[in-house]
Amino acid sequence: MTDLLWPGDARAGDLFTDASVVEAMVRVESAWLAAGGHPSELSTAFSVRDVAVAAEGGGNPVIPFLELLRSRNPEVAEHLHTGLTSQDVLDTALVLQLRDTAAFVARNLDRQVAALARLAERHRGTRMAARTLTQHAIPTTFGLKAANWLHGVLDARDALSAAADLPIQIGGAAGSLAAPTALAGSPAAALERVAATAGILGLPARPPWHTARAPFTRIGDAFVTCTDAWGKIANDVLLSSRPEVGELSEAPAEGRGGSSAMPNKHNPVLAVLIRRAALAAPPLGATMHAAAAGAIDERPDGSWHVEWATLRTLARRTAVAADQTAELLEGLRVDIERMAATLTAARPGIDAERRKMGDDGPYLGASDELIDAALARAQGKPC
Amino acid sequence: MTDLLWPGDARAGDLFTDASVVEAMVRVESAWLAAGGHPSELSTAFSVRDVAVAAEGGGNPVIPFLELLRSRNPEVAEHLHTGLTSQDVLDTALVLQLRDTAAFVARNLDRQVAALARLAERHRGTRMAARTLTQHAIPTTFGLKAANWLHGVLDARDALSAAADLPIQIGGAAGSLAAPTALAGSPAAALERVAATAGILGLPARPPWHTARAPFTRIGDAFVTCTDAWGKIANDVLLSSRPEVGELSEAPAEGRGGSSAMPNKHNPVLAVLIRRAALAAPPLGATMHAAAAGAIDERPDGSWHVEWATLRTLARRTAVAADQTAELLEGLRVDIERMAATLTAARPGIDAERRKMGDDGPYLGASDELIDAALARAQGKPC
Amino acid sequence: MTDLLWPGDARAGDLFTDASVVEAMVRVESAWLAAGGHPSELSTAFSVRDVAVAAEGGGNPVIPFLELLRSRNPEVAEHLHTGLTSQDVLDTALVLQLRDTAAFVARNLDRQVAALARLAERHRGTRMAARTLTQHAIPTTFGLKAANWLHGVLDARDALSAAADLPIQIGGAAGSLAAPTALAGSPAAALERVAATAGILGLPARPPWHTARAPFTRIGDAFVTCTDAWGKIANDVLLSSRPEVGELSEAPAEGRGGSSAMPNKHNPVLAVLIRRAALAAPPLGATMHAAAAGAIDERPDGSWHVEWATLRTLARRTAVAADQTAELLEGLRVDIERMAATLTAARPGIDAERRKMGDDGPYLGASDELIDAALARAQGKPC
Amino acid sequence: MTDLLWPGDARAGDLFTDASVVEAMVRVESAWLAAGGHPSELSTAFSVRDVAVAAEGGGNPVIPFLELLRSRNPEVAEHLHTGLTSQDVLDTALVLQLRDTAAFVARNLDRQVAALARLAERHRGTRMAARTLTQHAIPTTFGLKAANWLHGVLDARDALSAAADLPIQIGGAAGSLAAPTALAGSPAAALERVAATAGILGLPARPPWHTARAPFTRIGDAFVTCTDAWGKIANDVLLSSRPEVGELSEAPAEGRGGSSAMPNKHNPVLAVLIRRAALAAPPLGATMHAAAAGAIDERPDGSWHVEWATLRTLARRTAVAADQTAELLEGLRVDIERMAATLTAARPGIDAERRKMGDDGPYLGASDELIDAALARAQGKPC
Repeated sequence: MTDLLWPGDARAGDLFTDASVVEAMVRVESAWLAAGGHPSELSTAFSVRDVAVAAEGGGNPVIPFLELLRSRNPEVAEHLHTGLTSQDVLDTALVLQLRDTAAFVARNLDRQVAALARLAERHRGTRMAARTLTQHAIPTTFGLKAANWLHGVLDARDALSAAADLPIQIGGAAGSLAAPTALAGSPAAALERVAATAGILGLPARPPWHTARAPFTRIGDAFVTCTDAWGKIANDVLLSSRPEVGELSEAPAEGRGGSSAMPNKHNPVLAVLIRRAALAAPPLGATMHAAAAGAIDERPDGSWHVEWATLRTLARRTAVAADQTAELLEGLRVDIERMAATLTAARPGIDAERRKMGDDGPYLGASDELIDAALARAQGKPC
Repeated sequence: MTDLLWPGDARAGDLFTDASVVEAMVRVESAWLAAGGHPSELSTAFSVRDVAVAAEGGGNPVIPFLELLRSRNPEVAEHLHTGLTSQDVLDTALVLQLRDTAAFVARNLDRQVAALARLAERHRGTRMAARTLTQHAIPTTFGLKAANWLHGVLDARDALSAAADLPIQIGGAAGSLAAPTALAGSPAAALERVAATAGILGLPARPPWHTARAPFTRIGDAFVTCTDAWGKIANDVLLSSRPEVGELSEAPAEGRGGSSAMPNKHNPVLAVLIRRAALAAPPLGATMHAAAAGAIDERPDGSWHVEWATLRTLARRTAVAADQTAELLEGLRVDIERMAATLTAARPGIDAERRKMGDDGPYLGASDELIDAALARAQGKPC
Repeated sequence: MTDLLWPGDARAGDLFTDASVVEAMVRVESAWLAAGGHPSELSTAFSVRDVAVAAEGGGNPVIPFLELLRSRNPEVAEHLHTGLTSQDVLDTALVLQLRDTAAFVARNLDRQVAALARLAERHRGTRMAARTLTQHAIPTTFGLKAANWLHGVLDARDALSAAADLPIQIGGAAGSLAAPTALAGSPAAALERVAATAGILGLPARPPWHTARAPFTRIGDAFVTCTDAWGKIANDVLLSSRPEVGELSEAPAEGRGGSSAMPNKHNPVLAVLIRRAALAAPPLGATMHAAAAGAIDERPDGSWHVEWATLRTLARRTAVAADQTAELLEGLRVDIERMAATLTAARPGIDAERRKMGDDGPYLGASDELIDAALARAQGKPC
Repeated sequence: MTDLLWPGDARAGDLFTDASVVEAMVRVESAWLAAGGHPSELSTAFSVRDVAVAAEGGGNPVIPFLELLRSRNPEVAEHLHTGLTSQDVLDTALVLQLRDTAAFVARNLDRQVAALARLAERHRGTRMAARTLTQHAIPTTFGLKAANWLHGVLDARDALSAAADLPIQIGGAAGSLAAPTALAGSPAAALERVAATAGILGLPARPPWHTARAPFTRIGDAFVTCTDAWGKIANDVLLSSRPEVGELSEAPAEGRGGSSAMPNKHNPVLAVLIRRAALAAPPLGATMHAAAAGAIDERPDGSWHVEWATLRTLARRTAVAADQTAELLEGLRVDIERMAATLTAARPGIDAERRKMGDDGPYLGASDELIDAALARAQGKPC
């Protein structure tokens, strides 16, 4: 999958493509069959496009999907999906895709943490001007700046980790497990079949959450918390990449950062694209919340439907930005001399607070200790 | 193009597909060539997918697009794009796609206006209970209700009409027409070439608006104003389709409204999907505004980039919902007897205001005159 | 009114304060009385706070307001509000407040237009570096930059002008003018009384738009279009105020821009606060659209209620930012030498396109003509 | 504090009023003094309004606040605020207000949990029609519906609990604790003073998070997760309160639910106002994220400033809705007979799945077990 109008989209690979979602739906149906003691190898010799086009009839893609799946697997057609409802299959398929996305993002968060820890350590002594409200404030170090970025990334990692353990969502037509119970012979057996299905899919079991959508808003918020942290970094890099500042720059890369008209340009493309993602994400997170609040009845009349594409867009873009931010940080160029020159040029104003405090040292405060705290946190120690 | 997770997406046809956007980019380059007196037939024998994948390098799809376009058209390679910058091509290509989308939506608004005018006229005398804050209020007519829906649709039509006349956006590298002027020999000649390009594309000319993005926020707001009007209608239809109310229903259609588990269900699928679009649109409109406010410098570092996919998503979804709403209204079933029965059951409470006002008529106020006013407005007369 | 957490709030004066809204409600009731031939001088000797606290009972402030208004005006108690419903009074009172806000904003837009026209004219020849994607692009002039800001402000002025002519909203309990008709004796007489009320209030008449909320979303979008234009300017000023750039600065003012800890700081406070407003506005505009789409029934169950405070917040903040932006632009300091120095330092890279185009002039393109076009548009001439 | 345009606002009492925020700022300054071994009783004989009006000068309220505070406390003026920066005081004051708000909300969540547990238990056997996509689906019980609401509320409680432990935010001018270190003599002593200040305020200590704003976005998301859960409940109650459904209703209360024109009306006012809060909250949460992503430099130029009023609005409205939802649930009327009648009327359609599954029981699936699981979770047991 690629998206002409979201450059970098290919980094997200197959996550949440139509084909991947259909494949996840197949996995859910297959696991349900297996948990019920039925043959669970399913032939999927049908066109994803056909499913997509026909999805409008029932308002969701599961109905045409099932028709095709049954026609391709006549020997289990009778047991296929029996006991389930469309929402069970689609919700749990989205859960599977979100789990994959979260794992992809988590790997990139780890790369970022490692890169930032290196930067914070290496630049403990790299002095630069701190800036507040656009103006030079007091001296600081780039190491401390990197440590602050690191805290943001660790906050995002914590948020993602708390949200990524998404549970299975199976409740039957109205969240009571009525059909599964009829099928299995008892509530306990129905719950057992759900738990077995969850086990096969590697998901935590949980009572149906068909109209209590916090698992989806939580992962949405976690994705946005990620793009927040990266957006902060990108904003700093974009400013520092300006020729007037020149303290940071992206690693040069073949075919990266050119202009269609101006051969002189070397644009900080990764940071631009990361910032873009951070601008777009919060309203998508808000859409997930609006959907959750609108979850009327035992299956809502539109609030459910708005979640699917919203989650997909948010997930893929977060994955793309995760990879871009890792690459950006791993290759970040730090111009120590330029930082020093800015600091010198900012004198004597930038030393005003230092003088007021009667200090005659470098005025770096507890920056070393704060860097240590961030590094410790990165390694899972209390900070 | 189809979208598994946005059922009904196929209704938008080729609007804003990657291929359509690339084709629009070709049209812009071709018009620029023609306006400069160069051969303007361009071979486009290259893969849209290749353009999309390579778009990340420069942060936008124009750079790889040009490389491929030049390689396929060596005879005009020298003149191709000369004088333009990436933003000129992409912005104007988006304008072309938005114009097509607006035309598609406008046709469907006209269908809606016609259907609503018929409903308002036919149901002037169809009495029903007005509802406020969920409770029965006073009697009204379904004709007046349809007339109010009609006002909403006419408001949307006005908004779209005011926004759809999107101008060309060509300014060169920094909005000063520097390269076009160098090329054409004088500012007047450069402005003339831009005007000629606009003429070929059928667009209004206007000074560069590379960082004054109101044309894009205005069309975004107009699309959202459309989904607002349709969302209101869908919400009313959804409520009225509930079995406890039963006053309105969607026309039955082959393969429409079924359930994967419950054969008894006849779901109001069109209204569900329209409501979904209305839930998702406002945050996308907000993203366009956030981008406009962030248009720093002569080309911003992310705020420009976030517009493209946002416009595409908003445009396609509006097109889909436009068509769905027209179909919904053209087929809407009105259960006059059920409306009458509700009204009777709501007595005597629903007559409380009437009695308080000492009125002994049907208490329909100026509903006839208000219906006439809506019908007159629909025909472009002052109301 | 002041708001500790929205510095500058006092600039909006009494617009939309609780007291102003109550006063506007009184004006609506009074106009309705006068249009009905009743005495219309109303005593308002009651506490706005009491109205506010009691507003929860009926879900809106009109009910306790009326109780108090009737008790203070026993001689017209019988006629007071008769024929109206709560929504008529509150909607039309909001319209009156919005009209005042729009007038306040329009005056400040005029100040901005004048200031920008002066800047564009004065700095036609002030050369500076154009910046795209954070990097130096080609030369331009500050006059052209100001002309582009001016286009943004003129777009906002157009949007506000198209939205500010808000009509009266009177429809009675369910939008049919049932009670007014009973009261006046005929639909025509009821419509006449509404028109007379509109005339007294100086508002356009229009059929009830109780559930067709485009008038409110349109003014909301217009306010956001204003903060977009100002946010763009503020972002440019903030960047240019950085010591590394230093090309623009806010006029110094007594007690402005200081720091609680760093005596060296001179912060661009106006631009910071304007940028803040531009960040906050788009989601509020989106809330108005979500409310409009949710306008179920003849009076919705929450969507109406969310509009009031949202409009108030958006209106006051727009008024504050309007005044701040006018002040910012009227006092803006332009450092011509610094602009020239940046341009020199950007050579030879910034001349790359010029050389490629074989131009040996200043490479300012049609900047003079584009400035003229903006100035002409500011004066209402076709551009 | 009251808000005419946000009925019910008074329920939030003094939370986040201007006076409360100033008082919290005083507490922060006082704790800092005490932690530094200075007298810490502070006279606050000054006008909050004066602080608010003067806040624009420096762009935040701390600067005029300090001037007044120093003038009223000349004996500690020298030590007051020394070592701190404006952001330290305002951020930590907001933290204190958020902690109070979270505690208020948590108490109301506990009331809701208790009320819902009672409803779930009491109505285990209360059969009703489950509804999906607006249509009758299969039978369920009101106890299970209440159990699902309970899960939503418990999700919200978990989210709030994870977010409410907001840490102190003290970092000095640029987050390096430079001035505190100069003052205290060593980094360790500076960190100790911060920790002591945190101890006095009862807050967790943490390294400065001046530009890593996840603590604020997390509490924002938690508030929105609360209004999501309540919005879902309110939407169900609003539907069920409709006369055509009539299965649930709000407890009657003196002066509640009346209409200014229609004496027959009994409006579900609490649910209306709760739904309103749920509509308004998600965009405010999104604003917090946009601010976090924009946290450029060591103190950003507008992104910081937009947080304050946004947090206040979100916090107060969440508090109001928390109390309203608790009251709604504690008084909720359940019409068992009406539920039974709906179910009967829905036959035989509603039994279609049951018959297809060959079940001849009540077809309530595992509803008892699922209710037990929700009740167990409410009591903190694993479910």
